[in-house]
Amino acid sequence: MPAKPTTEQSAQRVIDDLRELALLTSDAAGAQRVAWGPVWRKARQWFADKVRRDLDVEVATDAAGNIHVVLPGKRDATVIIASHLDSVPNGGWLDGCLGVLVGLEALRRAAAAGECDLTLRLIDWADEEGARFGRSLVGSSAAGGSLNVEDIRNLKDRDGITQAEAMRENGVNIDSMLDAHKQLKQVDARAYLELHIEQGPVLESLNKSTGTVLGTFGVERHMIKFTGQAAHSGSTPIPMRRDAFLAAAQFALAAREIGLKYSRPGANVVCTCGIVKVEPAIVTAVPGVCEISLDQRALDANVLAQMHADARAASEKAANDNNVAVEWKKIWNIAPRLFDDRLLRLCDEAVNEITGDSYRLPSGPLHDAAEMVPHMPTVMMFAYSARGLSHCKEEDTPIEHLEKTIRAFLVLAEKASESVSL
Amino acid sequence: MPAKPTTEQSAQRVIDDLRELALLTSDAAGAQRVAWGPVWRKARQWFADKVRRDLDVEVATDAAGNIHVVLPGKRDATVIIASHLDSVPNGGWLDGCLGVLVGLEALRRAAAAGECDLTLRLIDWADEEGARFGRSLVGSSAAGGSLNVEDIRNLKDRDGITQAEAMRENGVNIDSMLDAHKQLKQVDARAYLELHIEQGPVLESLNKSTGTVLGTFGVERHMIKFTGQAAHSGSTPIPMRRDAFLAAAQFALAAREIGLKYSRPGANVVCTCGIVKVEPAIVTAVPGVCEISLDQRALDANVLAQMHADARAASEKAANDNNVAVEWKKIWNIAPRLFDDRLLRLCDEAVNEITGDSYRLPSGPLHDAAEMVPHMPTVMMFAYSARGLSHCKEEDTPIEHLEKTIRAFLVLAEKASESVSL
Repeated sequence: MPAKPTTEQSAQRVIDDLRELALLTSDAAGAQRVAWGPVWRKARQWFADKVRRDLDVEVATDAAGNIHVVLPGKRDATVIIASHLDSVPNGGWLDGCLGVLVGLEALRRAAAAGECDLTLRLIDWADEEGARFGRSLVGSSAAGGSLNVEDIRNLKDRDGITQAEAMRENGVNIDSMLDAHKQLKQVDARAYLELHIEQGPVLESLNKSTGTVLGTFGVERHMIKFTGQAAHSGSTPIPMRRDAFLAAAQFALAAREIGLKYSRPGANVVCTCGIVKVEPAIVTAVPGVCEISLDQRALDANVLAQMHADARAASEKAANDNNVAVEWKKIWNIAPRLFDDRLLRLCDEAVNEITGDSYRLPSGPLHDAAEMVPHMPTVMMFAYSARGLSHCKEEDTPIEHLEKTIRAFLVLAEKASESVSL
Repeated sequence: MPAKPTTEQSAQRVIDDLRELALLTSDAAGAQRVAWGPVWRKARQWFADKVRRDLDVEVATDAAGNIHVVLPGKRDATVIIASHLDSVPNGGWLDGCLGVLVGLEALRRAAAAGECDLTLRLIDWADEEGARFGRSLVGSSAAGGSLNVEDIRNLKDRDGITQAEAMRENGVNIDSMLDAHKQLKQVDARAYLELHIEQGPVLESLNKSTGTVLGTFGVERHMIKFTGQAAHSGSTPIPMRRDAFLAAAQFALAAREIGLKYSRPGANVVCTCGIVKVEPAIVTAVPGVCEISLDQRALDANVLAQMHADARAASEKAANDNNVAVEWKKIWNIAPRLFDDRLLRLCDEAVNEITGDSYRLPSGPLHDAAEMVPHMPTVMMFAYSARGLSHCKEEDTPIEHLEKTIRAFLVLAEKASESVSL
């Protein structure tokens, strides 16, 4: 058993592992570890081989296809470290796998230090991205018990293969996959830790390597349809028009104002209109119909509810002002998931220890950690994302920031273990 | 030779002819007289038979496929009455053919009155709508001399047939079609008169049967592309976004204000954003690109130029306010075509005589008359359009309004002939 390395040495080892994985599972277009496919299986095999070589422990798979690696301590009380090896097609070199490989290093460090008081459990969640079938957080929501298998059973990929079939190819029986929840409930989990890249521009804008994540945003996602009257662009005077697009334009600008109205320093909220479709969509016609999407996110459930109510009112005003009708159709919503206060403070301490200060921010994207919030104290740490880019090969965290983040997370893992031991 | 009928009798005869044509050339979906096709040929054959039966004169076709019917007077000095028998697919029962059949009635009335001083020439322009190949005003722009045949030679319909081939099937050689211009220049034309449905809601909103048309709008038509940066809807705070759609939304609302700013009572102008395309057009992404069309129209060339300059400035402001780039690409433009003052006054008098008042309005859509403006004194009269609808089977002018319009136009035809005779 080698001596426990310094955090600097550990960070270098994690970065070396990340580069090795990228060489093995990326091409010129980026990472190709799409869940349930051959490159993903290759990545997991590489990971399992490394675990067995470096730690001399078993690599188990639960009923939902999540990989579990357990480093037993004196007690069953457990700290979980988790993330995902799967990627989107043409993905980046850090999204997901950073969190798994820093977890592996945490276990290697613990093993090097001799038998621990606490048990450490490293999990590689299956199909976090949902890139092939459209449903994300598959493995973690099964383990968290929130998954409805009927929602995913018949999802199809581009070749017509169902999610159930693709999982069966990987040894997962969809009808028993929720047993993963029973398996997780057997674990005496005292803390859940996850490191991920930010996928946004906030840390970069503040030139901070690392941030403590407050929780994942709640989301209200809707399609809003404005219906006026198509008319000839030449012969219809402006005051006689019922222009559905101008109603949508007014609404979209109002939605931004709603987002700004409820944003506070350190408690940012967002409103986005990402889809816009007009009919008849010809240069000589006043648009008679405009459909627009609205995606609102906030960490505070009451704020999210107010933002949603304000958006409803803004849509009514835009419809009235433009003499058109409006109707809403819900796509999806989810409540905010707030992380654990005690773990947030430990995370702040760890970040402060390595970088000299600390900063808290919410997570806009969802993460596997959100599925664990109902079951155990949970926290996430974010790494600086260059230009906020993710889900593309340009995704990056400059090495000096990546190195600090890895060190801070390893410190957090040790603080969490010590804290549970007390 | 029957006695000259009253204008009421004449109006009834025109309405009967319109209904006969509709029965012959419409189906349940509307009129099907698409230029260069079999139903259009059937309509023209029906028209030619009627001319020969009622007037005992020749029916000639010029080099561009336009039908000419000449009722000779004592002098060569000529009043032209013209419109088009072709329709869009699933068109209305009045668009175009109203103007041809009221012209036929004007010739029948003149014939019934004995030999006239002036010569009357009725023209059925070929392919006004451009419904099959996308280029409108084909026959009149050939006769007006403004057509560039290379612009239309290789236009293709849905079956891959070219405009040149379709015209050849109808006896028109594209290489000699501009001879129609030489033929028209031989005519000692002193006035050009055209009756058309308004295709807009203005006369209906004022409950007026008939209007004097001031001219056809000039048009500036452009595509405007805003380019920002696509970003994740959850992780990108609003102040850090470069949202191309919000720039376009701001611009579209500003374009409407520009239209309202330059509109005057009786001198309406319009600005329309009919096409809106965003990228990547997904619910979880801030739009990185938004392309939007702008169609601006005005009767006064200086006003149109100011509107265009204001729109350029508004697009720059919208781009700056949203931290995005903007670029313009011209689709098409045309100068306003103003009608003849003396004929405008005669048109007012005729409308006033039948309806008790008169009203002037511009034409938003283009018409064959626009092609005649450079060559002879020209005027148009508009008929009330129910709900402003056109290019659909619901297009209509209620009979009481249609009857008054037809009578007013017949009065105008006689006033124009008398005026030229003086």
